[in-house]
Parts: sequence; structure tokens; C-alpha cells
Amino acid sequence: MNLWSRLAGLAALIGACGPLAAESVSVASPDGRIVVTVSDDGGTARYAASFAGREAIAPSKLGLMFLDHHGFDRDLAITATTRTSHDATWEQPWGERRLVRDHHNELAVTFAATTGPQRQVTVRFRVFDTGVGFRYELPAQPAFTGPLKLIEELTQFAVGEQTEAWWIPSRQFNRYEYLYRKGRAGDVEDAHTPITFRKADGLHLSIHEAALVDYSSMSLLALRPGIFEALPRAGADGIKVHGQTPFQTPWRTIQIAPDAVGLINSDIILNLNEPSALGDVSWVKPGKYLGVWWEMHIRDRSWGNDGIHGANNADVIRHIDFAAEHGFAGVLVEGWNIGWDGDWFNNGDVFRFTESYPDFDLPMLSQYAARKGVSLIGHHETSGHVANYEAQMEAAFDLYEKHGVPAVKTGYVADAGDIVRFDDKGILRREWHDSQFMVGHHLRVVKAAAKRRIAINAHEPVKDTGLRRTYPNWMTREGARGMEYNAWGSPPNPPEHEATLAFTRMLSGPMDFTPGIFDLHPNSRPPLRPDMPRSDPAIRPQTTLAKQLALYVVLYSPLQMAADLPENYAARMDAFQFIKDVAADWEESVAVAGEIGEFVVMARQARGTDTWFLGAVSDGTARTVAVPLDFLAEGVTYTAEIYADGPDAHWETNPYALTISQRPLRKGDTLALQLAASGGAAVRFVPQR
Amino acid sequence: MNLWSRLAGLAALIGACGPLAAESVSVASPDGRIVVTVSDDGGTARYAASFAGREAIAPSKLGLMFLDHHGFDRDLAITATTRTSHDATWEQPWGERRLVRDHHNELAVTFAATTGPQRQVTVRFRVFDTGVGFRYELPAQPAFTGPLKLIEELTQFAVGEQTEAWWIPSRQFNRYEYLYRKGRAGDVEDAHTPITFRKADGLHLSIHEAALVDYSSMSLLALRPGIFEALPRAGADGIKVHGQTPFQTPWRTIQIAPDAVGLINSDIILNLNEPSALGDVSWVKPGKYLGVWWEMHIRDRSWGNDGIHGANNADVIRHIDFAAEHGFAGVLVEGWNIGWDGDWFNNGDVFRFTESYPDFDLPMLSQYAARKGVSLIGHHETSGHVANYEAQMEAAFDLYEKHGVPAVKTGYVADAGDIVRFDDKGILRREWHDSQFMVGHHLRVVKAAAKRRIAINAHEPVKDTGLRRTYPNWMTREGARGMEYNAWGSPPNPPEHEATLAFTRMLSGPMDFTPGIFDLHPNSRPPLRPDMPRSDPAIRPQTTLAKQLALYVVLYSPLQMAADLPENYAARMDAFQFIKDVAADWEESVAVAGEIGEFVVMARQARGTDTWFLGAVSDGTARTVAVPLDFLAEGVTYTAEIYADGPDAHWETNPYALTISQRPLRKGDTLALQLAASGGAAVRFVPQR
Repeated sequence: MNLWSRLAGLAALIGACGPLAAESVSVASPDGRIVVTVSDDGGTARYAASFAGREAIAPSKLGLMFLDHHGFDRDLAITATTRTSHDATWEQPWGERRLVRDHHNELAVTFAATTGPQRQVTVRFRVFDTGVGFRYELPAQPAFTGPLKLIEELTQFAVGEQTEAWWIPSRQFNRYEYLYRKGRAGDVEDAHTPITFRKADGLHLSIHEAALVDYSSMSLLALRPGIFEALPRAGADGIKVHGQTPFQTPWRTIQIAPDAVGLINSDIILNLNEPSALGDVSWVKPGKYLGVWWEMHIRDRSWGNDGIHGANNADVIRHIDFAAEHGFAGVLVEGWNIGWDGDWFNNGDVFRFTESYPDFDLPMLSQYAARKGVSLIGHHETSGHVANYEAQMEAAFDLYEKHGVPAVKTGYVADAGDIVRFDDKGILRREWHDSQFMVGHHLRVVKAAAKRRIAINAHEPVKDTGLRRTYPNWMTREGARGMEYNAWGSPPNPPEHEATLAFTRMLSGPMDFTPGIFDLHPNSRPPLRPDMPRSDPAIRPQTTLAKQLALYVVLYSPLQMAADLPENYAARMDAFQFIKDVAADWEESVAVAGEIGEFVVMARQARGTDTWFLGAVSDGTARTVAVPLDFLAEGVTYTAEIYADGPDAHWETNPYALTISQRPLRKGDTLALQLAASGGAAVRFVPQR
Repeated sequence: MNLWSRLAGLAALIGACGPLAAESVSVASPDGRIVVTVSDDGGTARYAASFAGREAIAPSKLGLMFLDHHGFDRDLAITATTRTSHDATWEQPWGERRLVRDHHNELAVTFAATTGPQRQVTVRFRVFDTGVGFRYELPAQPAFTGPLKLIEELTQFAVGEQTEAWWIPSRQFNRYEYLYRKGRAGDVEDAHTPITFRKADGLHLSIHEAALVDYSSMSLLALRPGIFEALPRAGADGIKVHGQTPFQTPWRTIQIAPDAVGLINSDIILNLNEPSALGDVSWVKPGKYLGVWWEMHIRDRSWGNDGIHGANNADVIRHIDFAAEHGFAGVLVEGWNIGWDGDWFNNGDVFRFTESYPDFDLPMLSQYAARKGVSLIGHHETSGHVANYEAQMEAAFDLYEKHGVPAVKTGYVADAGDIVRFDDKGILRREWHDSQFMVGHHLRVVKAAAKRRIAINAHEPVKDTGLRRTYPNWMTREGARGMEYNAWGSPPNPPEHEATLAFTRMLSGPMDFTPGIFDLHPNSRPPLRPDMPRSDPAIRPQTTLAKQLALYVVLYSPLQMAADLPENYAARMDAFQFIKDVAADWEESVAVAGEIGEFVVMARQARGTDTWFLGAVSDGTARTVAVPLDFLAEGVTYTAEIYADGPDAHWETNPYALTISQRPLRKGDTLALQLAASGGAAVRFVPQR
């Protein structure tokens, strides 16, 4: 009914607004290009953001609503503003770069209600050269006594209906494991963050959040085409967030950049997190690992004890030997503990986190590994029965600590909305993977692990919001479609997948993507057991071999897997050399070139060395990329070891064609990389002495 | 992570299930073709449905979860079953048919919890020849004392990933006003009901609900591709439904038919509603009406008092005169009351429901209309500020009763989730249009109106679930994309829209679609005022003129509008004759032929007469439809007055080509209708005396 008359009404209002004494304040980034304007026009709290005079976010509402308290929706007025500036550099114990500069201008705007009980909320904006963060802060005050129950966050993000968008939906079951969609912002109904936008004028945006603590994860819901509202995930009780004053939200972040790589070359998510709460974290060790893992995904082996159990002593020893021989730090073993034999998906309480299968001897294997300079990496699959896991968690980490396990991969394979816990009356509650309960659970796990000097690699996790700064043992996580989908996914990851991830999922933080598959037709071999048929042979990594190598540089993870079987690496030691050489921790990282979902070129300097690595990946289109080597050190000649797609390489018809060459290169040179269809290039730059 | 291993786990479970002493009971439709099977395998309550041995709904979970009580999720066992049969015929005061047969077999299955507090719930199934209804009934029992707060309904509908689907999404802002989508069930993420499916074997399904009272509206959320869970809309407090024992849900309905028209030829929604609660309802009068309405949508006039106010005495009198001359029962007047002049969309409390604009004289106009045998139809636009409306509602209906207004069109133009009310502490609450609060509000309105013998036509309503049986003054409603989108919609309704509505939205009940636009290029005329530009000329009804006539038969509404301006009808009295002749109340209705979104042929017998009407509409494809006239009475020769697309008619290039002809026809004859691209045919069959 009568949309236009509604618009006519709005027009009348805008006309009427002129004489109102509305407040409007603004703050700019240190370089002056990004400007945030905050107003109380018409009694509504709003903000807007621009970049070099171009609109980034149109005026968008702010507000909070509570179940038992008058909130902040309408009838608001700006009553105070405070400004500060900040410029400091801090050091990461591990990361994409060692030194991070936090340079921003801050504006805190206090809104007071003009009707109802006297009350106020402050919205604190931090404006960096690469984007904006803001959060709500609700101080203790008479109007907010007792438990706070947040029922709506009214934060809007008006990006424009015609703006291009890359996103995954937030409403369904699959814990972020979706193919990214591309369309207009007006086509986005609901989305997880980070969500990436490109405006018609080329401005790039990424909306996400930082420091998600004691709140539920924010997704975006389209109120109207191109206008999104923050939707914190509701808990089982329907309340989005439980809290009390003083109360603050996570930072809502808007990265703004004139080009795609500008989104990657930003540290605002980390800068908006708190410094480390763990003190000395030198025990957190980045590194590469192998695993008893892919063999289960391609159905050579099983997690359960059904005759082809993967986690058996002999097979684990074989992996340890191979890891030791080739310099890998760890060996992940899945399926080592009791619980995998029945319908564990719907009965998560079957898992025993301190009880091994009889053919897996944890003390013996951990000692064997230690003698070889290798660590076992532990595994805790909860299947979402968090009640069962939390009851055993302390003992489970004690066990791993006792046996020198430095990192644990956790897992929450469950339908969304199917995380099981019990309330204080013993009533079963089901929560979403990104609810406030799970946000708290993950931090409980991370803290329990930290007490034992154990790092966490969470699968089916809550999304990353930069908490690795505060808890550096929360090293990496899944939270997107990883390599496993190329074993059984229907469809597998398409050629553009990784070039999309780089500009979407990876903006939130490291991902345990598990690259490095060398047998690119894993389902084409005859099954080992006729009763365990492989997946459709058409399901395979849709990349070239060179692209598999490039992923080690493109997709950052401080725990980086070499995911294929040892025998497949042994068959291609020439290519495997790059995986052996590549670092997992970095002094510096630079996104050199790229377009969302098309290609990306990343360069990274190995931590504590002068060696640089470069990775480039393409989507399904072959292309030549001219890479200016500006990142290299001045005056140094490097030997570049180049792993490139062979002349006729193509992910579909000729994926193994790989050319390995060496040449001297210097800063100022341009390296022309020929990327095949879904191809890639991986380069090591070693300074000549 | 490891989807296949999860499937392997399930396979193991299925193997293990064999020896369990699970209960399974079933019930068939009277004709034996539909069979519902209910089981407690593995402690889970499940049902499945089949048609003639073909799977309609694969085994699907049942259950309820509450905030403060142990619910029904797992660990359940069937403890009792009861069976009854029912065959009766009842009479509608008005409707698609006068006599409705309610013939079904009933199976009530009681599930008891096997762990935790002793408790039980009964699921009552009614199986008709055209589908299934079931509801949960929770009797008073010690385990369910105190207020009930439903947090999850676990009802699932497993229709199959590859099944075709026609649906509108449920998550966004636009109150059912979406273009229907067509895709695989696996593509449906969330959907309003009714949702329509067609399986690969041609079986047609429609999932909906009946008798939505004191509960929130059910939408469907995909748990996995093709498997949907009932999602009752949460209230502002996050609770989906508040209640107390004895507690029952609305009926969840699954229509099942071997062909598309079988979905239309079903009365199960009405049969699952309670009989009239209003006693004598002879004062509820079906009929046709004109309105001061389209002229605002095409921007000749305004709702507000801005110099071109539509609801002025002179213009209303002109409409009354035209209505009286041509036999229309009513004249709707929108924009008659104070409130339309500012930003009413965001300030719904501006509306005054008893205060006319100065140029609208309600007493004079109602008396003038009465002298001419015409009634004014009232209008209450709330813009979703239900608190403001409920405070004035009784007085507003008193006013209309005093002036003989027999029907009121209500309106709730607001963003979804933006219905305004206040809780008992005066805290502003925002609710969705289909929340439990709004379900209750609409019934409060209907009952308040019934006290004054006033009928309701709700726009931006909650969806229809057959409550017109219980409250026959709730005559019709909007709740889909109506004709107005052809005045300003971007895009307007496409050619297939009405042929889709017939098999989707219309399965829920009558719709005030407002057909009958004769000027098919309403935005091509110069604007009346330069400051009120019309919409894009490309926005127009994408139909032929004949199709506009056919809509009077295809899209049922007991209050049926002739939506165009009187002068446009005066210019085409030849075509207008059909609108003058067509009935608005029916003795019988038959869906004769059709395919979803392609075409549909409806035949209806005017209530209390021997006259039949036929309407046929096509999508964008021209087609010839051979209509067997089996619905006509035996042995009678009818004069068929046929309003057909002209030989070169086409919605885009030649929409006005209309051929009006007469010929004698009898039962057993076949009428070949040539439908143009987005064309139609309208026929009146008058018995020859």
C-alpha cells in the first residue's frame, strides 16, 4: 500500500527539518580522507561515513532496545562529545606483521533521551585511515538497574541498493560454510560479517565487528534493499544479549578503501581489540603441520573404530616420521578418542575426551614424536554438545598438557541452532554457533587451554573478530568452506573461491583452510574398501598444483596444514619443497594486487628473516599479472624461486603442469606472473649473500 | 568438517535401530490415498505423509520446547492413540462455495517423555482426501504449571532438496509483498506460508496453517536443503508464543494433490477452523466496490490535505454517483482522516480515526450514499502504530456504525518488525506484522468491528489461515503484491504473477487484489501537477484488458474492487459490462485447469443463481486452453458472453484488443480459449430460458 505517499511524507519532513536545532558533529581519520558525521536530526541518532568526499555509508540509525528498560530508539539528543587522538605501535607475538600501528582519531558522542526516564548512552567512534569502528557504551545509571536484556540493536548500515556485494547468508544451518554469493546489496537478505561491498565509484567496504566478547555475534538483516540492521544472534531464550551496566557492545567496523587490496591492508580489527591478557605467550608457536585427516575425508580411513581406523599407532608414527623428516612442527590426529562409532552427530554426549581408542597410545606416540622434534596436535570434536564437552574440558586439557600437546583443534559439527547445553534447571537448551553462550564458551575453552599453554584451532567456530590479540593462543579457526569440500562437497569449491575468501572471510582473521592437496583427483582412485565408496570423482580441488602452493601465502594461518597424504607429497618432492620452505609467521604482509573473486597477489616477509614469499591465485580465468616488487628491501638482490603454472596448465584439463625456475630479482623489478585458469604462482625470494 | 562421516554415523544408527521396539501408527484419508505415519523411533517423534504410495513428506520431526519447562525434543515414546472419523457438511454465509464437506479421519497420538519430569503432549492428525492437518495439544498437567513460553517449535517438513518450490521469503521487511520466487526446495532459505511445491513425480504440496489464534505466525526455515522447520515469529521479548495449559497450536497443514488445480480444489484450511463465533452474520454482505484510491497511487491526488486531496466531498460524490449508476455496493475513501500530512510512516500516532479533513463531510456523504443505495467503505491506516489505533478503535468503529459504514479497510504500512506498542511499563515495543501480538490485535479489531456489524478488509495484514469461518466479518485482506505495484512498483507485477498467486497466496483465502485497471498505461499521461511527477511510464499493469476482467473470477475476494477511475470505465463500457455483471459471492467454485505460474482457469457459480462465470489468465506466454465445460448444469443451454483477447492482443504491444462475443454452450462442450501473452478470458454463462 501507498509507498509513494510514504515517500511524499518523508519529503515533507525533510522540508520541515530545516528550522530544527539538530546537532551534527564529525570526526576525520588522521589522513583526513574518512569522515564520520553523527547527528540527532528528528530525535534519531544517526551516523554517516564518507571517503574523500564520496559517500561510504549514508545516514544510518543508531540505537539499542531492552526488554525491561526504556532504550534508545527515538526522542534522542546529543548532549556531550569528547575527542581524543591516538598514535602508537604495538608488537604481535605472531601474526601477519610484527609491528602494528594504531593511529586514529576518536569521537565519543553521548545521546540522552528527551522523553521517559532520564538516561544516556555514548557511542564511541574511532576513525582510522582504513576505516571506522564504533561501539555503544552504557554507563551505570539509575535508569538501568538490574539485569539488562538486549532485544534489539538498531544499528543500521545504508550501503545503497545497487552496490555490489559478496556475502554468505546468516540464517541457515551450515556454520559459515557457504559459497560466497555475489550480487547487488539489494539482493542481500541476511548475511554474516565480514561482508564486502564495492560501490559504483570503486569504493570498497567491509562491514564486520571487533572484540566480540560477552555479546552475541552480529549478522546483518536487510530492512530494505541496501539498508541493513545489525542483528545480534538471539539466545535460546530469545534474548539477544544478557548483560548489566556498565555495558558495552563489540566494535562495529566499517573498512573503507579505494581499492580491493586496501581492505586487506588494514589492521583496524586488531587495533580495536584489547592487548594480550595472557602475559608471556612465547609458548604459542606458529608452524606447519600434517595430519591424520585427509585420508578420512577421501574415505581411505575412518574416524571410528570400524576396521580402518585412521588414528592407529602405526599410521600416526608414519606421519610423525614424515613430519620429522621434512621439518613440520606438528601432526594432527583426529578420531583418536572414544565416541565416533554411532550417531555422534545427534548424540554428542558419546564423546570421551580423555579416553583413547585401544589402537591409539597417546603416551607412547607423544614421546615418540617428542624424540623426533615433532608435537602431536590434539583434537576435540564436540558435535555441538557443549554441556558434555565443558564437563570434561579441564581434564581433557590436563591430559594433553601432560603429554606435551601444544595445540588442539576443536570441532562443533552440529546443525546451526543445535548446540546443546542445559540451563540451571536442567532444561535442555539449543543455541546457535554464534550466540552469546557460544561466544562465552569459546573464551572459556581458550582460557582453559591457555592455563596449560595450549593453543586453539576452532572448527565450526564463532567467527573471528580479532580476539587473537587479547588471547594469542586462539591461533586460527575454520569458519568458511575449506579444502575438505573438495573431498566431498556438492559442489566442491569453485575456481574463484580462494580469490573471494581473501577479500571476505580472511578480513576477519586467520583461517585453517588446510591447503596443499597434491593429488587433485582424490575421488578418482578405486576405493580401498568396496563398502566405503569414494565421493563423485567430479568432486576435486578445482585448482592447479601451483595454486595449491600459492595458498600458503594467500590464506594466512599461523598453524598451516600440509593437508595431503605423505605419499602424495613424496611423489612430488619438487613442488613439496615450497611447502617445506614457506613460513607460517610473518614480519610483514602486503596485499599487492587483486580484485574480489578474480585474483589476488600477497607478499609476506618471514618473521625474523629477510626472506619474502609471494602467492598469487586466479579464478577460473587465466591471466597475466605484473607484480611490482616494491615490497623487497632496497639494494638487495634476491634469488626468486618461482613455482608457476606450466604453459598449458588449466585446473580442469592439466592441473599438474608446474614450472619451477630461479632468477635474480630486485626491488623496482616487475615480475610478470602467468596464472592459468584457477592457477597460481608461489615465489620464495632469498637474499643473495 | 566431515559431513560424510556424519552420514556414516547415521547409517550405523539406522542399522542399529532394527531391534528397537519403536512404535509406528498410521491413518489414511477417507479415499485411502493419503497416509500419515507417526513414530517414536529412537525416541524422536516423527511423522511422514504419502499419496497413493508416493512420498509426500519424508519422516519429519515433531516437538516443542519451552523456556521454563522441560519440553518435547528427544526421549519420547508413544503411549496412547485414539481414532475418530468425521463426515459432515456445513454452510458458509459467503464464500467460494456455499456447502463445504468436512470428511476426514483423525488420529491423536500421545507422546510421553521417558526422561525428566513426567509429561505428555498429543499430536492430533486429521487426514482429508486433499491433505493433512495436525496440531499439538498440551493438556494441563503437573509438569506445566505457570506461564508457558514457547521458544521453539520443532515441527519439520522434509520435502526433498530437488522438489520445485514457489515461495516468498519471510525474513525481510515487506509484509508478504514480494514477487514469488521459483526454484528448488533446496534454494529456499526461509519462506512464508502458504508455500507451494511440486515433486519430480508431479505430486503437488502446499504447506500452511489453519486457525492461527493466540500463537504467532509460522514461517519455514531451512534446516538443511529441502528440510524445513516451523519458525513461529518471535515477539519483541524473543519468546515465540506465550500461553498456558491447556495449550494448543494452530493446525499445520499439508495439502497434497496429484495436480496443480487439486491444491485449489480443497477446503481443508476452512475445515480446520472453528464454526462461526458470531451467530447471525447476514449483515456481512459480499459485494463490489469503487474507491478514492487508484487516483492517489498514480499521483493524480493525495491522501493528505495538500491542495489535491482525494477525499473531498465533490470527488466522493462523483464516485458515489458512478457506483449507484452501475450497481456497485460500496465506495472506499482513503485519506479522509487527519494524519496524512507529515511523516506518518515513522509517526503513526498522528492518525486520528474520528476526525475528518475539513473537505470530507462524513455525515453528509454517508447520507448521500445511502439515498443512492451505496455504502461508504471506511479506512483506518495505522502505519503500524497499533497503540495509537487501539486507543481510538472503539470510538472509530462507533463513528462508522453511526454513519452506516458496513466495512472498513485497515492498513499497517510499516517496516516489518516495526509495529509499535507499549508494554505494561510504558516501554516501547516493536513487533512483527505476524507476531502473536498482531495475531491478537487483528482479532481484537475484528471483534470490535463485529459488535458494530462492520466487516474488515485488512491490508498489510497477518496472513489468512481461514479465520473467516469463525469470524465471517473478516472478509478479505491484502498480504501479497496487489495491483498497486503496477502504479509504482519497481518492478511492477510480471505477467506470471496472477497465475502464480492462484496456486500460492490464494490457497490461504480471499485477497483484495483490486483488479480492473482499464488504463493500462497509467504513468504515461502527463502529470496533473508538475511537482507530482508520475512513476516511470514503464511501470504499468503487464496484462491485457481481457486479463483484467478474468481476475474477477480467478482471484477470489468477497469484497471485490473495480480499482480504476470512473472515467476510465466510462471510456470502455463494453468491457466494463463484465465487471458490472460478475458476482462477488459464489455457490460453487472449480479450478478447472492450470499449472503454477503458467495459467489457470477458474469457474464459479454465482451464489443463489444458475449463472456461471469463468476466468482464465496466462503468464507471458500466449496459449490456447481447451476448457471442458463439465461444471455447467446438465441439460441446460447457456448463452456464453465471452470477453477474449483480440487476435493480435499482447500485454506489451497491444493490450486493449478485446473481442466480445456470444455463443450457446452446454455441459459436455469444450471451450477453446486463446489467451494472449499475459492475456486472459472472462466468460459469463447465462442459462437460456
